[in-house]
Amino acid sequence: MGYGRGVMDADVLPGPNSPLPPPFSALTAEVHEARMRRALRQAALAAEAGEVPVGAVIYHRDRLVAQAFNQTRTLKDPTAHAEMLAITQAASALGDWRLLDCALYVTLEPCAMCSGAIVLARIPLVVWGAPDPQRGGAVSCFQILDSPQLNHRPALLGGVLQDECSTLLLDFFKSRRTANHDHPTTEVPPP
Amino acid sequence: MGYGRGVMDADVLPGPNSPLPPPFSALTAEVHEARMRRALRQAALAAEAGEVPVGAVIYHRDRLVAQAFNQTRTLKDPTAHAEMLAITQAASALGDWRLLDCALYVTLEPCAMCSGAIVLARIPLVVWGAPDPQRGGAVSCFQILDSPQLNHRPALLGGVLQDECSTLLLDFFKSRRTANHDHPTTEVPPP
Repeated sequence: MGYGRGVMDADVLPGPNSPLPPPFSALTAEVHEARMRRALRQAALAAEAGEVPVGAVIYHRDRLVAQAFNQTRTLKDPTAHAEMLAITQAASALGDWRLLDCALYVTLEPCAMCSGAIVLARIPLVVWGAPDPQRGGAVSCFQILDSPQLNHRPALLGGVLQDECSTLLLDFFKSRRTANHDHPTTEVPPP
Repeated sequence: MGYGRGVMDADVLPGPNSPLPPPFSALTAEVHEARMRRALRQAALAAEAGEVPVGAVIYHRDRLVAQAFNQTRTLKDPTAHAEMLAITQAASALGDWRLLDCALYVTLEPCAMCSGAIVLARIPLVVWGAPDPQRGGAVSCFQILDSPQLNHRPALLGGVLQDECSTLLLDFFKSRRTANHDHPTTEVPPP
């Protein structure tokens, strides 16, 4: 499992085997997978809507406080990534811009925009499925979630249900390419 | 005028004396300053609302299509930076998630989140006032607006009305510190 292009030492890459700090250390692999499966269901809704299939959910302790899928095309809004919509939802649900005691689960490594939002919201745990070596803002292309320069560094866990998360994206882009071949003007906003 | 911590060579730093590509090369310094002054008026509205005073405006060619100020505290939403609100507004006004032929003016160098959104929206020109050496995502702390790895690199212009933009922020934080001394629980979301 590789997240980047040699920007982080392989031994310190976040992954299912890395220890998480408390209280997240108490969460079992089954809990992480069940939550990611819920994010995957959001991603599937995105695919049905013709959107790049990325889904996100946020838990405040054991309670689900947000679930969203990428809607950049539907809303004609480049900022409408799954994580952004989920962060706004969770802040609204909790009545606070600080998402303390929250864990974000997202099917794809967050981009630079979403990683920046995660830091601003001070989310303490970020879990993702598929890595994004080209555009990942968390640890791949930029190291926004692992930067000593910023005032918040969440715990990270990558690769949860990676195969399912990646397959959903690959299938979507494969079917898009076929559609573009028939209708070459179709364009999908980037994830 | 310095933007970062030696991450870019001084000769290639964006600035008022750097040539901009067409069609932006036709814009005079007076035009840039008039637009930044409008962003500054938005920033002043933020200060009046008790928000970190950052303002942004977007022009589509010669037409103003968005103006917004930081509202993270009012909306209890960590994603409600001036640039994000302005990008969503402009996309709505133009009916397209791609902000082609647009120029964004913002009083403070965009953070990582806003820089990521600028890339996603494909904004071709970004102009800012004050640099943000601690958290700037454009060129200072991260180089999101100057990255060969991403699929969009806007033209950049920094330091327009820098003194006015910086003074507004410094005055705000100075008055906040006084207020915090009286009411230590008051906290302002980061810009």
